[in-house]
Amino acid sequence: MKQSSLPLGTNALELIAECEMDMQRRIATDEPSVVHLGSGGSRTRARICIMAGQQLGLSKHDVLCLASAVELLHNASLVHDDVQDEDNERRGTEALWKKYGAARAICSGDVMISAAYAAIADLRCSAKIADVLRETHGAVAETIRGQSLDLSSDTDIDPEQYEKIAAMKSGPLFRLALSLPLLVANRRDLLKKVEYVAARFAVAYQINDDLDDWRQDKENGDLNIVNLLAKNLSIDEALYVARNRAKYLLRKCQRELSNFPNESAAMVEQLATKLMQQVEKHY
Amino acid sequence: MKQSSLPLGTNALELIAECEMDMQRRIATDEPSVVHLGSGGSRTRARICIMAGQQLGLSKHDVLCLASAVELLHNASLVHDDVQDEDNERRGTEALWKKYGAARAICSGDVMISAAYAAIADLRCSAKIADVLRETHGAVAETIRGQSLDLSSDTDIDPEQYEKIAAMKSGPLFRLALSLPLLVANRRDLLKKVEYVAARFAVAYQINDDLDDWRQDKENGDLNIVNLLAKNLSIDEALYVARNRAKYLLRKCQRELSNFPNESAAMVEQLATKLMQQVEKHY
Repeated sequence: MKQSSLPLGTNALELIAECEMDMQRRIATDEPSVVHLGSGGSRTRARICIMAGQQLGLSKHDVLCLASAVELLHNASLVHDDVQDEDNERRGTEALWKKYGAARAICSGDVMISAAYAAIADLRCSAKIADVLRETHGAVAETIRGQSLDLSSDTDIDPEQYEKIAAMKSGPLFRLALSLPLLVANRRDLLKKVEYVAARFAVAYQINDDLDDWRQDKENGDLNIVNLLAKNLSIDEALYVARNRAKYLLRKCQRELSNFPNESAAMVEQLATKLMQQVEKHY
Repeated sequence: MKQSSLPLGTNALELIAECEMDMQRRIATDEPSVVHLGSGGSRTRARICIMAGQQLGLSKHDVLCLASAVELLHNASLVHDDVQDEDNERRGTEALWKKYGAARAICSGDVMISAAYAAIADLRCSAKIADVLRETHGAVAETIRGQSLDLSSDTDIDPEQYEKIAAMKSGPLFRLALSLPLLVANRRDLLKKVEYVAARFAVAYQINDDLDDWRQDKENGDLNIVNLLAKNLSIDEALYVARNRAKYLLRKCQRELSNFPNESAAMVEQLATKLMQQVEKHY
């Protein structure tokens, strides 16, 4: 990964700031959405999208439309997930449904989903709008299938099912950050690779989370890969298997990512490296 | 209204059946959505859209895309509304959230919203996709503003606020059934008239509902225009004022609708006539 060769730096930071303003403008009159978007978040997906779009030579306008769309969908999924899972906290503060009630939080997610599609409508490369819409709906529908599968599963599933749910729930919206700029740049040939990477990254990310939280999840009876594996292994063996699985998946990602054109996936490579380091800290 | 001159009849019925199949295909793997769409519903919006599209000379393919989009959005709003209002019944059977839980019902509404936008992506007149997306998001966002206003209002509002909420909650998605085919047919000049008609029709529809239910709503403490008016009037006077207001609004609709090109709004004219008759039955 040659991060220093990227001609981005401050420019990308400016675009992130413009993306914030663009999203706020698009959901302007819905107070809960304004509050949610103002509550922080890493904007990882916007960053991936902006850097990929710039490296692929997309116009600034179109990059911003895609980054807003991807980030609005991700935030809609967080707001609805918190209602569904009755999670009380998000980003160190009250979850939106705790602050405004579940009904207003459902409205907030709905308006962010709709605003994401309106952002796609604003693409200047209008010949690409239909393709971008279809790819987006494909990802949203798969995420919802993953969420539905998770909702109807108990905590006594096998590791294969665990990975399937993690990949379906988080892979597709993560994938959009890279697949939408690639689509606009006429690189449909790479979409399968992006799907492959996003699914594996999503599972590795979830395993790393589980490595952090396995004690707490055991107490609360929440689904956790370490505790699933510990049904047939000692806890040390389970931790070892989980770590190795995450590292294996991340190496698979890294191998694919290094072949992307113009370092368009450099940001995802950085994330994979960082996640690998976090997994290794669990030794 | 010259219904007999419409060259539609069975053809329109076939298109409604095709629209049903198209919607089912688009949400195929989400069981709660399949069940909800299979539970009936008048498909009023699909009918309006199909007849308008045919009268305006749109292709069958594009008419179906628009009808599916409009009907999917309407059904998404019903499913989410029932979660938000904790309404137990819909179409004479258990509401979706009662059958599958609130979490799955939220997923169902989400996937129908997203599928509506994917239906728009399939328009063959691709030059119109961006306009149709923007008009659609404008309507969705306004509906959500109306729903949010309703959720945060108490039952002690004035009749003006009552009409504003009714118009905002139901007018915009109703409007799409006519405004989307008009947009595709290059009749953007008529959109303001459609908005005018849809807002008034939505309020008249709500008043007629309230004329049916005012006794029950009074018992339950639910918002009802008759009971609002009866704070300053006798109940007979309140009923008289409510009926007259609904009839006035419907006459306003009828006047505008008669000027639409090629009888494209004939279906809405029929609905206005039918609603007028229902209001008059309350004497």
